[in-house]
This record gives sequence, structure tokens and C-alpha cells, in this order.
Amino acid sequence: MNGMNKICKEDLDLAAVYVSDAQHNRNIFFDTTPQAVRLYLQYHRWPLCMLLYFFITLDLLLAVAEEPALLPLPVWATMLLELLCLGVFAGRLVHYAKVIPRDKFWKDPKNICILLILLLTLMDMLVFAALRSSGFLAIRCSRVLRPLLLVNITEGRQLRRAFRSIRNALPQIFYVFLLFIFSVLMFSLMALKLFGKRGLRTVEGRPYFTNFLNIVFDLYVLVTTANSPDIMMPAYNASSFFALFFVVYILVNTYIFMSVFLAVVYNNYKKYLKEEVRQLVRAKRHKMARAFAILQERRAEGAEPVVTHGTWNQLLRLVQPDISDAHRELLWSVSDDQNKGVIGKVAFVHLADLLNIQVITVKSRLHPLQTCLPSLYLSPVSRLLCKMVQHRAFVVLFDVIILVNAVFIGLDEEDPLISKSEWFFLVLYLLEILLKLYTFEPRTFYSRHNFWNWFDTIIVVSALIATVINSAMKSSGAYTSRQILDIVFILRVLRLVRVVDSIKSFRIIINTLIKIGPTMLTFAQLIIVVYYIFAVVGMELFKGRIRFFGPDSPDLDPDRGWCGNPALKGSSFAKLGYCKNNFNNLISSFMVLVELTVVNQWHVLSSGFAAVTHVSARIFFILFHVTVVIIIINIFVAFVLEAFLLEYSLEKSVLQTSLEKKIEELKLGAAQEVDDNLVVAMETPDNELGDSEKKTSLMFKISSTRNRTVDALLQRMFEADLDQEDFTDEDEALNTNFDNPTFNSI
Amino acid sequence: MNGMNKICKEDLDLAAVYVSDAQHNRNIFFDTTPQAVRLYLQYHRWPLCMLLYFFITLDLLLAVAEEPALLPLPVWATMLLELLCLGVFAGRLVHYAKVIPRDKFWKDPKNICILLILLLTLMDMLVFAALRSSGFLAIRCSRVLRPLLLVNITEGRQLRRAFRSIRNALPQIFYVFLLFIFSVLMFSLMALKLFGKRGLRTVEGRPYFTNFLNIVFDLYVLVTTANSPDIMMPAYNASSFFALFFVVYILVNTYIFMSVFLAVVYNNYKKYLKEEVRQLVRAKRHKMARAFAILQERRAEGAEPVVTHGTWNQLLRLVQPDISDAHRELLWSVSDDQNKGVIGKVAFVHLADLLNIQVITVKSRLHPLQTCLPSLYLSPVSRLLCKMVQHRAFVVLFDVIILVNAVFIGLDEEDPLISKSEWFFLVLYLLEILLKLYTFEPRTFYSRHNFWNWFDTIIVVSALIATVINSAMKSSGAYTSRQILDIVFILRVLRLVRVVDSIKSFRIIINTLIKIGPTMLTFAQLIIVVYYIFAVVGMELFKGRIRFFGPDSPDLDPDRGWCGNPALKGSSFAKLGYCKNNFNNLISSFMVLVELTVVNQWHVLSSGFAAVTHVSARIFFILFHVTVVIIIINIFVAFVLEAFLLEYSLEKSVLQTSLEKKIEELKLGAAQEVDDNLVVAMETPDNELGDSEKKTSLMFKISSTRNRTVDALLQRMFEADLDQEDFTDEDEALNTNFDNPTFNSI
Repeated sequence: MNGMNKICKEDLDLAAVYVSDAQHNRNIFFDTTPQAVRLYLQYHRWPLCMLLYFFITLDLLLAVAEEPALLPLPVWATMLLELLCLGVFAGRLVHYAKVIPRDKFWKDPKNICILLILLLTLMDMLVFAALRSSGFLAIRCSRVLRPLLLVNITEGRQLRRAFRSIRNALPQIFYVFLLFIFSVLMFSLMALKLFGKRGLRTVEGRPYFTNFLNIVFDLYVLVTTANSPDIMMPAYNASSFFALFFVVYILVNTYIFMSVFLAVVYNNYKKYLKEEVRQLVRAKRHKMARAFAILQERRAEGAEPVVTHGTWNQLLRLVQPDISDAHRELLWSVSDDQNKGVIGKVAFVHLADLLNIQVITVKSRLHPLQTCLPSLYLSPVSRLLCKMVQHRAFVVLFDVIILVNAVFIGLDEEDPLISKSEWFFLVLYLLEILLKLYTFEPRTFYSRHNFWNWFDTIIVVSALIATVINSAMKSSGAYTSRQILDIVFILRVLRLVRVVDSIKSFRIIINTLIKIGPTMLTFAQLIIVVYYIFAVVGMELFKGRIRFFGPDSPDLDPDRGWCGNPALKGSSFAKLGYCKNNFNNLISSFMVLVELTVVNQWHVLSSGFAAVTHVSARIFFILFHVTVVIIIINIFVAFVLEAFLLEYSLEKSVLQTSLEKKIEELKLGAAQEVDDNLVVAMETPDNELGDSEKKTSLMFKISSTRNRTVDALLQRMFEADLDQEDFTDEDEALNTNFDNPTFNSI
Repeated sequence: MNGMNKICKEDLDLAAVYVSDAQHNRNIFFDTTPQAVRLYLQYHRWPLCMLLYFFITLDLLLAVAEEPALLPLPVWATMLLELLCLGVFAGRLVHYAKVIPRDKFWKDPKNICILLILLLTLMDMLVFAALRSSGFLAIRCSRVLRPLLLVNITEGRQLRRAFRSIRNALPQIFYVFLLFIFSVLMFSLMALKLFGKRGLRTVEGRPYFTNFLNIVFDLYVLVTTANSPDIMMPAYNASSFFALFFVVYILVNTYIFMSVFLAVVYNNYKKYLKEEVRQLVRAKRHKMARAFAILQERRAEGAEPVVTHGTWNQLLRLVQPDISDAHRELLWSVSDDQNKGVIGKVAFVHLADLLNIQVITVKSRLHPLQTCLPSLYLSPVSRLLCKMVQHRAFVVLFDVIILVNAVFIGLDEEDPLISKSEWFFLVLYLLEILLKLYTFEPRTFYSRHNFWNWFDTIIVVSALIATVINSAMKSSGAYTSRQILDIVFILRVLRLVRVVDSIKSFRIIINTLIKIGPTMLTFAQLIIVVYYIFAVVGMELFKGRIRFFGPDSPDLDPDRGWCGNPALKGSSFAKLGYCKNNFNNLISSFMVLVELTVVNQWHVLSSGFAAVTHVSARIFFILFHVTVVIIIINIFVAFVLEAFLLEYSLEKSVLQTSLEKKIEELKLGAAQEVDDNLVVAMETPDNELGDSEKKTSLMFKISSTRNRTVDALLQRMFEADLDQEDFTDEDEALNTNFDNPTFNSI
């Protein structure tokens, strides 16, 4: 539509927003008026997002100060803080409403969700305040809604996707679960008939397998293996043949059914995720096509529309202001493969993916000492020193020193010789860092990608400071703080971790783990949402029922031995000293939930809470087990499995390969790291525009470890399937409607 | 080489052996002399194989009668029995040696293995007898070698493959394991420094985290979650911050590392298995090509060699004597797609796969009552009855009856009304079976494929017999045997399982489990081999150290409370009543190993055995954990995962599809089961040759559930990869050498 004319500022802005959205996989259908576009840009500014996350965290942390509180605050204070949070969320929603068309706003379930949460919370606060001021018992029910904000904000895309996948997998899981429950019930019935009339007793002297519901619970617990082999022993002691019943039970329900759960969860999760990622890719193409439509020019009548180099440069400066000229030229040369000066639609669409490949601009830089004191730095002695530091033996030497250090740490630190040796090791480590700084260029040495150099320096310097403080306190005869000593010990042990980096096989595994790390954060959020809801419900159900008497509290309470509740007299819960596992505040609730997730002894915990309330309290714990252990942990394992297998068989994407080929062609390619242990001179893009004399020393390198987004990993997971569609359905994907739940085509 | 001549008997025999070997995936390089071929055919006769398995079982079960024995036999008796077993194994080996060329025999490691096992066992027996007769302490070391026979016999192909896969995966697992151990050691060191000097105590009052080796053991146990949260409680009680240490530890070591183990084990297992299956397919093709070379004829000079219909028929009669004429013709028509009367090499090679597809010959047969009393059976009343039985409501009615029955079983059976109701239900079930027999043709009703009909009838009839016996005993006032009552109860509950078959979603899951069942048997053998070795070693280490005093033994022994060993005084092992978990005979050893596999409380067991021997006994238990839980159980889970996913997304193989198409074309196709619950008239092949009047009622159907060999499932697992090679590398695969470890090309 723009023909051969110059593209106006507003159009360019709009196109930049489309490209940026495609790059970050945002699917927001915003108004295309210049005003709305400006507001939209503001909506995604990081300070606003940070502020939102800060207030969500604050809102969630309010539970620490509310009844039952860890740090009690007056009710009016928490209420005021919560009102403030609600205000911020409402403001954010209004901002969002101004960005997108009215009808789209009301069609989006996540906006409705946030509105509902805000309204319900407000109503609940009013009811609570009214009831409380008139002296009635009041419960803040709406607290369970708080974590749902994390899911429904615009930025909670990955979390929403995870929840959608779980919801889609539920029907299948449900049938396997029913069959599993049927199996447990059948075995329970058999157990009742086989053991109920035999007059057997458990180790604690209680009757064994006489009540059907108790049997069902016990056998459910056996599936989690938490009460094995105790539950079997009375029957096994009576006759060896009865062991067969339990062996068959464990084989069927623990091994086979649990594996089937993993298989079904995995299968469904993968299937629906694939579909969502496919839609994501379509949405991305669609946005890039829209950007192209804005920027396109026709060179001749009837010719294919193209985007010129100049327009492209302007666009890129808007989309990624911090990109270096050289990097931009590199991307252009990849897109404009035949050097025509213009690119077509297909090449343009790839820009979003190209921008997601992290290219590091590598520079070889002179050591500052070489510039200041060239004669000294280049002297034979100095060169020998540098060679020594760069030698493999230097690394091995310090690995050995670290291992010797480990032995010394393990020995008793009260021996004066040992405690002095710490100084010796500290000096050695400092010397190592200084020698490395002498050999390698300092700015390169501490560049963003050299994780282990940063790690080393921070640990050694912190250890030095902490040790000095500790010695000063000790020699001055003042109170020796255990906290500082603890920190010193932790730092010393952490230093040993460095050894891992020297062994290649270890480094591969660690790097893989680091790579899938960011993706695991989605699961962390998922766990926090589920934990928070269970914690809030648990606090309302069980608060104050079980009390913990710390080591500092006076020994006066007669109920001290059974957690302050006579109902626990003689129970395993009290005997095992689980009193601190209670729902009396948010932190200890979370700890109980962690213990329930680990599964072991969860029957003791649930029986304890059932004893102080009602036997039906077990339902809460079974529900938690089904939700977290059977569903979420299985999805987590399935995800790690898939991601690890994928990362293990590392293959480069088509675009990455073409980018690398281009780098190679341009003869700017940096030599591959010959030895990963040697510090390679590399640097991040740093906007040194037009510094032509440095251009010869510029090199590019594709970073494989950084900036790997969740979406990128997911898209790569299903790359094989998507690539086919890539070229066959392209026009369809670009021009037809698609049913992405959050992004509708125009 | 035979040109246009008639193929002689010997050549045909040889070709049949090749085809049969290809069909059953046997990779034995036998002599091709007629004599050796005859011996070779005998070698694979099932009575000989059964005999071999019987003697292996006998040899393994000898451990029950040997010191420490469950059923003690005099030493000379077990020795004689073992000599008999050795004789049988030696005989089998001699037979094998006569079948294959001398040089091949000595090159095959499994023959050497068996020879070594036999020789070592013999030597060990001699040494044992000599030492024992002169009154010295003697140990039968060679007992650990017994299960290795299972691995090294010709039939242990799948087991050998599983072991090879594990061995190949070991290097990769080893690096992850080292990293994992490093992580455990680092955390242990940190724990020692953080908690060692604080003077904390466990619930039992022992010092907490003061000894480095104990900490390593405790934290290793924490990875298995067996001592969570007990190990954390003292530190958590001292300060809530310390919980962070344990949360991080569990996250890193239990969740992440254990998932990585699964990923690495799975990845490697799959990779090497794929390679082995590829070689297997090549070997199969090679054998089929050899069979083709023997049978081929050239119709004209320079024409492609072919196999005629007549030769093919002769061959098939030799390979599978029980195949029906109609079935054979069906297979021929699939191979000879263009009706030429001859088939080429490519079509011939597929024969082995075709033979592995189970085709059921379906016949519609008249009900015997219809033949005898047609007027009665075809009367409107009788027809209505048949319609009612076939109606869906009939199934639902009996499902409801079963559920009501379940409630009655759950109630107290000593109530006279309840115990009388059992008779009522029994009569109902009998009536159901009789009605079904009236409606459906009895021989069809009890055909081999109708699992649930057989199940029903056996359960109901057994329950009837057992209930009658029980009532007779009761009314005669004689001793009421609990054993018979137990059986009655088990049968009653098993009857309820039938409900599962009525619900389609359940049936799919159950069928999938049944399908992958046979493949799981390889894992059962694997587990038996590993268990047996650990049981024998465990018996030598721990026999008699811990004693169990059964409920019938006199209360005289003062050590009764602590398992007959004062070293266990006050230990958790004795308190929890684990005395029967000992290594005093093979059966209880196996039970201990099952409990160790389930993992929970394994630290109590290992500490118990360490207390009665030496602290280093823990190594035995850690070794077991690493071998069985980390490696074998992970492979099992990975296998179930893969197999279940594969079965869930059920797709037919190319050959199966072409066979089905041919059945359809021939208009012999049986209607697909309209309702799976209706009994479909089907029958197994039964050699009714030339019964032409029945031919019109003959139908074929591909059975999807039966005769699924492990190899077939494995080949299907990697079908996608193999199919490519199928057509591209075919000639290469057929004509060139390949490096199958057990089958060398000629």
C-alpha cells in the first residue's frame, strides 16, 4: 500500500511492534492506532513488568503476616497493603484495556479471570472486615485466589500453557486413575477377607486390616511405598505365603500403574503441547507477514513485494536498539542470500527467529599491561609465566590443590594447624586469580559468558572477607558469630565445586542442566501456585492444632511431648518429633507440603493431622498426593526426560546452520574453542558503531548457552514436525484464520 | 544351481530351517550337511527346550535345599541333583557342538561361558566335598554362577540383549553417577561443617551429623527419600533456615539427578537396542536370501530367479505343518500380488514376517441345539431369549449384580443372611454362563481367544466347588480349614474383576498392558538373575545372624525381642519387628531383596544387618540399590514408557496392512467386531484340509493380541528407522557381511 514512498514513522513503529511480538512470542491483539501502539510499547516496558511482579510477590507474601502469621501485622495494615496491590492490578488491567479493542478485551478469559479475582477479593475483604468488627468468626476465603493472578497476567503465558496441557490430559489420566482405584479397592477387599478375621496385630498392637476404609488408605499409602514393609510384616510373620499378596500388589500398583501414569501424562502433555507450539509458530508467521505488509514495496508493476535494506535497517534499530552495526549487517547478509539489496516475504519472516539466535561479537584485545609496559610484559620471563598459566598442568595443579583442601575442610577445624592452613589455601586461590588476570585480558576474563571466572572470584573474595571478619572477632575475644562461620564453611565447600568444570564429561552434563534450567522455572511457578492454594486451605483447616515448642521455650507445658495436643499422645507423629511440621504459618506449611511431595512418611503426617481434627482430613493429603505427585511431578519428569534427550543429541536448527555458514563465508568466523578450558577472547555486543579500524579484529560466534527461552526450547522440541509444515502450509498459515486461544487473526 | 530341476528333499529341509530360523529370529550358524540339519531340527524341538528349562529351574531351586536351607536335604542329595543338572547342560552343549562347525563353536563367547560355568561348578563341588569331609569350613562359591546359565543358553537371546544394552549404557551412566556422588559428597561436607558442631541430637538421642561417613550414608538414603523427613527434623527444629539445605539437596539430587539417570539410561538403552534390532533384521533377510538361493529357479536365461508356487507350498508345509490350506493360499496371494504363479526375491524375503502375523480362521458354526432340536431352538421364545442375552442390558444387569455382590462380600460373612446370599449370587453367575452357552455356540464360546469367558467359567466353577466343600465341612462339624475359606474369598473377589471388561476405556488400557506383558518377562528374568546372585551372596554373609521366632515357637529365648541377636537391642530393626527379613533361606532372602527394591526403610534393614556383622555390610545394600533401583528399574520404566506410548498410538505395519487388504479383496474378510462384548465366532487353525463344503463359511481375521514376540515388539518400536533401510540398503544387507555378534555371514 505504501508503494515506492518513504515509510512513515508510525508504520515503522507498528511494524517494529509486530516483529518484536513475533520475536518474543507475544500474542496480543492490540489496536493499531498510533496512540494505542505507544501505550502498548509502554505496557511491555520492563519497569512496569517488574513492578507488577513485585506487587504479586507482595500480595502472596501477605500470607506471612496474616492470621496465622509468622510476623504478625495488625489486620488494617495487611488490608491496606492488599488494597494497594489490588489497585496496581486494576491499573495494569485498565492499561491493557486501553491497548486492545473493547470486544477483544471482554472475549479474553484471562481478563475476566483477573476482574473476577479482584472483585471477589474486594467483597471478601469487606465481609471479613464487617464480620470481624462485629466479633464474629471470619475467614479470608479469597486468599486461595491470589496465586491465580500469576497464571492470568499477560506475562504468565508459559504457566497458562502448562495448566492447559494438564487440563487437556485430565480425561485420559482420569480413566487410568479410576482403573487404579478399582484395583486398590479390589485388593483392599481381598485383604479384608484374608487378614481381617485372623486376629493379627501390628507392631504397635493395634488390630490389623479389620476396617475397610483404613485398609484402603493403608494400601494407597503402600502404592507410594511410604509404609513398606511395615504394613506387610504382620501378615508375613503369620505366613510366608501372604507376602505373595503384597508382592503382587506392589508389582501391579506401584510399578506398572505408576509407569502407566507417567506414560499417559507424558503422551498427553506432549501431544497438546505440540499443538499449542504449532499455533504459536503460525501466530508468529502471521505477525511477521503483517509487518511485511506494512513495510513492503513493489519495485515494478506485478513484481513480488520486497523490503529494502534501508527500511530493514530502520526497523532493526527500533526492534533491537542495542544491536551492533556489524551484527545487523550479518543478519542482513543471511536474509539477503543472493545479494539483491532487497528481501522477499519468506526471508523476512525468518527475521524473528534470526533475532532469537544469540550472536556474540568476538574481539581480540590487547592486555592493558602490554599497552602500558610492553617491554616488561613481552619479556621472556613474563611470556613463560603466561605459557605456564595457559598450560593444562596449571588447571590440574589447582584441581589437586582443591582436593587437598577438601580433605583439610573435612578435618577438625579446631586444630590450630588446620585452621591456619585455610589462610594458605586462600592465598593460593587469590594467587591463581591474579595469575590468570596477568595472563588474560581482564575485561575479557570477566565477560558475561565466563560463568566460572565470576564464580571463582566471588567465592574467593567473599571467603576472604568472611574469614578476616571471623578472625578479627575471634582475636578481639568478642562473641564468635556462628552465622559468619556458617557462611565461611559454605563458601569453602562451594569453592570445591569448581573441580567439576575441569572434566569434560561432567561439563557436558552440567551445561545441559543449565540449559534446561530456565524452562524448569515454569514448573517452579506451577508448584508455587499449587503449594500456595494447599497451604492457605491447610492453614485454615489445621492452624494451631499442633504446636512446636522450640529448644528455647520453657519446659513447663505438660503437652510438650505430644506437640501440645493430647490427641497425639503415643502417636508416631509425636514420637518421631514431627511437631514443627504444622500449618501454623506460611513457611512451615510450605515445608509440610515439601515433605508430602517427597512422599516418605506422608501417612504419619496425615494421620497426625487426622488425629487432631477428623479422620476425613486424610482427604486433603490424598488430594495433594494425586495433584502434585501423580500429575505435576510426572509432567516434570516427562519434561526433563524429553528436554534432556533433546539436548543430549544436540543438533543445530536450519537457521542457525545458515547463519553459521554465512559467518564462515564472510571469513569473520571465530576459530572454534580449541580447548574449552582456555579462556576465549569474546565479548558481548557493545555498540561501537563505525569503528572501522577495529573491524578487522571483529569476529562472530553463535552462543549456544544463553538467551534460550522456553518457547525456543519447545519449538525446537517439535522442530521435526513443524519444519514440514514450514514450507508446505506456509501460505495457509500466513493468510488463513487460525484458532489460537489468545490471538485471533484479523 | 538347481536350474529347472525338481528340488531334492535335503535342500528343501535346509531352506525350511533357514525360513524357520528367520521367523523365530534365531541366529545360529549351523552346518549345512543333511545330518547336521537333522540334529539342528532336533535341537529346537520343544520337549528338549522344556527339559533344559526344567533342569535350570531345578538347579536354581537347589538353593532352597542347600545350607542355609528352607527344606534341608542331605548334602549328598543336593550334590547328586546338581551333578545330574550339570550332565544335562553338558549334553545340551555337546548336541549344540555337533550342529555347528567346530571353529564357530569355540568363537562363540556363550559356549565358553557355559563350559567355564560347568567346569568351575565341578571344581567347586570337589573342593567343597573334600573340605567338608575333612571338617573344614567350606563355601559353595559357584552358586552365584547358576543364574548365568539362563543368560548363556541359546534360548536366552532376549536376556543377553538386555544385558548387552545395560553394559553398553554403563560408561554414560558412570559419568552421571560420578557427578551425583560428587554432589552427595559436597553436600555431606557442608552438612558436617554446618551441623556437626552444634551439639544437635536425633529423636533417638544419638549425636546428629558428626561422622562424615555416616553423613554420606544418611544423605545417600535421603536421595531415595527413605529417611525423609526424619533426617531433617533435628536441624529444622534448631532453625527453620536449615530446612533450605535439605530442600536444595532433595531438589538437586532426588528430583534432578534421578530424572537425569532415567534420561541417560533410557537414551542409551534405546540407542543400542536400535542397533541390535537393525542387525537382527539384516540377519533375518540374510537367512531368507539363503533359503531363496536354494529354492530359486530361472524360468528363462537371464531372467530374474523366482520360486514357484509348488516349491513354496512344499516349503510352508515343512516350516509350519499345522497351517491350513486356506491360510497358506492367503499368504501366497499376498506374496504373489500380480498373480504370476512365481515370486521374486523381495516378496520371498517377506515370508518370515508374514508367518509372524497371526491369522485366525473364523468359522460360523451352527449351535448344536439347532442341529438336534431345530424346532425348539428356533421357536419365538427361544429366539427372544437369545436376543435378550445378546442385548447390552444383559451385560449391564450382571455388572450391577457384581457390584451388589461386592458390597455383600465387604459385609461380615458371619451374619447368616449374608453367608446365604453367597449361594444366591453363585446361582446367578451359573445361570449367566448357562444362558450364554445356550445362545452362543459352545466351541466358539470357549475358543482360545475368549479370555474372559474362560476366566468367568473357571472362577465360578472353582468358587462353587470350594463353597460346597467348605459348607460340607462346616455342617459336618469338622475342622473348618482357613485355607479353603481363603481360596473362596480370593475367588469371590476375583470375580469382581470382570466389571473392568465392560467399560471400553478400561479395556483399552488393560489390553495394552496384556500386550506388553510378554515383553516384561525378559525383565522378570533379568530381575531373577540379579536377585539370585545377591541372595546367594547375602546368604553367605548374613545367614543365621538374625533369627525369627514364629508365633508358634515357645517364648523362652531371652533374645526373642531383638531377633535373637543382642547386637540389635534397641535398634529400629528390632523395634519395627523386621526379624523375618533375614537371609536365612532363599525365600526370605528374595523377600528382603523385594523390600530393598521398593526402597522404603532400606536404611533400617541395612543398618540392622550392619549391626549384626560390620558397618561395611552397608556396601552390599548400596550396591544392590545402584544395580537394581538406579539401573534396572529405570530401564524397566523407560521400556514401559516406550512400549505403552507405542501401543497407545497403535498403527499397523506395512505387511499387516497388505495382508488385510488382500483378505478384504478376497471377500473372505470377517466383519469387524461390532460390539467387542458380543462373542465373535472365531476359531484357531485346525487342519481341516480340503473340506470344501465348509469353505464358504471360512473367514480370516488378523489377531492383534496373540503371538506377539519380544522381537516383533522391538522391531516395531524402531520400525520407522528400519523401514528406510528396508528398501535402500536391501541388496547391501542381503549380500554383504554384517557384524552380528552371534551370526556370521558365510
